Amino acid sequence: MIRIPFEAAKDELRRVLLSRDCSADKADTVSHEMARNSLDGTYSHGINRFSRLVRNIDEGIVQVDAHPSLIHAFGAIENYDGNLGLGIVNAQFAMGRAIELARTHGISLVALRNTNHWLRAATYGYQACEAGMAALCTSNTMPNMPTWGAVDARLGNNPLTLAFPRAKGHVIVDLAMTQYSYGAMEAALLAGKQMQADAGFDRHGALSRDPKEVIASRRPVPMGCWKGAGLSMLLDAFAGCMSLGSMVAGIGRLPGDEHGVSQLFIAVNYRMIAPADQSEAILDDAVDWLLASQPQEEGRQIVYPGQRAAACQGENLRLGIPVDERIWQEIKSLA
Amino acid sequence: MIRIPFEAAKDELRRVLLSRDCSADKADTVSHEMARNSLDGTYSHGINRFSRLVRNIDEGIVQVDAHPSLIHAFGAIENYDGNLGLGIVNAQFAMGRAIELARTHGISLVALRNTNHWLRAATYGYQACEAGMAALCTSNTMPNMPTWGAVDARLGNNPLTLAFPRAKGHVIVDLAMTQYSYGAMEAALLAGKQMQADAGFDRHGALSRDPKEVIASRRPVPMGCWKGAGLSMLLDAFAGCMSLGSMVAGIGRLPGDEHGVSQLFIAVNYRMIAPADQSEAILDDAVDWLLASQPQEEGRQIVYPGQRAAACQGENLRLGIPVDERIWQEIKSLA
Repeated sequence: MIRIPFEAAKDELRRVLLSRDCSADKADTVSHEMARNSLDGTYSHGINRFSRLVRNIDEGIVQVDAHPSLIHAFGAIENYDGNLGLGIVNAQFAMGRAIELARTHGISLVALRNTNHWLRAATYGYQACEAGMAALCTSNTMPNMPTWGAVDARLGNNPLTLAFPRAKGHVIVDLAMTQYSYGAMEAALLAGKQMQADAGFDRHGALSRDPKEVIASRRPVPMGCWKGAGLSMLLDAFAGCMSLGSMVAGIGRLPGDEHGVSQLFIAVNYRMIAPADQSEAILDDAVDWLLASQPQEEGRQIVYPGQRAAACQGENLRLGIPVDERIWQEIKSLA
Repeated sequence: MIRIPFEAAKDELRRVLLSRDCSADKADTVSHEMARNSLDGTYSHGINRFSRLVRNIDEGIVQVDAHPSLIHAFGAIENYDGNLGLGIVNAQFAMGRAIELARTHGISLVALRNTNHWLRAATYGYQACEAGMAALCTSNTMPNMPTWGAVDARLGNNPLTLAFPRAKGHVIVDLAMTQYSYGAMEAALLAGKQMQADAGFDRHGALSRDPKEVIASRRPVPMGCWKGAGLSMLLDAFAGCMSLGSMVAGIGRLPGDEHGVSQLFIAVNYRMIAPADQSEAILDDAVDWLLASQPQEEGRQIVYPGQRAAACQGENLRLGIPVDERIWQEIKSLA
């Protein structure tokens, strides 16, 4: 593991994107956000995934020169075709448009079809927070999770973010609908560890914390079992139907690596009905009370949602972003 | 267990409400929805909870003659004070208002503070579906769930519903943030059964499926562990801050039975950008594909979210609603 300063990481990703005929502003956006994902500790969706993005560009799945085009608009809701453009650029455009609409209407919804992986859901939550708005965003994915009681994957792990701005640190969740990602299970397997909670099913159909069993069965458990399965289906319906795009079922029929996903962006300009000083006092009080919880073990830190990412960002800004040396060499060798 | 026809159940609840100086239309609404909750199989939030509602009315926690009053309005977002009125009446009003606003703006948000238990989250999802709209609604609760790594309850199990209309059966989830309710654990304990998934923590702080252990520790596990804990906090922030009401922290400070909760209602008039025939074809295809999943055991039925409630409604309309005889006698004795 080596440590790369944020700006150096960003510059290296930017160099490769420019070599793929990315415009300067798009290369800037994508390199900034992918380096930031690693900076905030979401390593799986930052620098570690960059080579896959470049491969997807080279395969033609991601089209660096595409822009979203409007399909329909009505009041505060709009849907767009992402034209298979860069996932981060498309998603930032959509959230930007949602923020604009919410300035007039108080709330807005932008649905986006035929787009690509947005990398980290929280990115668009933070984007809204920086504009003083709350947000809810979701994306669907390729089929990668069986529904409750089934063995074959016909749901997506459809990430969901909810974000609420706060001067002392935004409160934000970013959660996939599986309890653990395959990446997390593979890391535990390498380290010879069991998962802390049930990760999926073993070959006999029993819930199991053994990453080896779950990776073999291809049956990761939805977060909250039947609850996460149901939520996954609803998020998929919201994103896929409102964008007139693909639901998970449709994404599964497309050949090649995951592409053509559907996303949803809701921005809430809540300060127009709940003045910032009053609403923030309510939130600060609740955060303080939560942080005063009695920990299970002495010395264990209780955190609010978003606190770990903020702390990680501070540390990685100071020390540099930890990157696997092979991954870094692979990126440097991309020409 | 006896079986009571839907109309007879509704009439009996209505009689009691009228004896508590409820207006005829409010008595009609509350008796209809509580009987319907039992009809749809949500027994814990239907007839079984009616005596508690009457007690709350008698204690003055629920004020049968109160109406919501507007606090602020901006475009498609509004917040109201529920003035401690009947939870179902207030929530139906709020969703009705959200539907009205979404007709103009495409999407809307109504936040409601100082209201009472809405009984079943799905009620307001169905209300939107009947108007051809999708919905997201949430309520906060008294503190009843510790956050991840903590032992004392400082989060609520804040129910969440997402609903999407469909001619062949609305697709809808209604989920509390705990994996199991205390009611479900008590029922399993009586039946001498273990829970199917981890229900909470035992006295040693380990995840456990034993309802006895979890009831004793008062540490139910959030759905998806840390994920449900985070989601609970965000839903609480949305409902409490946008309504300028109480977050879970504040509800915990009010004396007496749970009251003065905060709720949020979002309606999406998505058909204005995603015509019904096109969006419904996308959803029907995904539902059909999901239902064709390979079940874990031969003969096991795979369902879409909302299917069980619809099936239960059909059965209970035919056979009558199953009600515990003592509960029914208690209601009949209320004068």
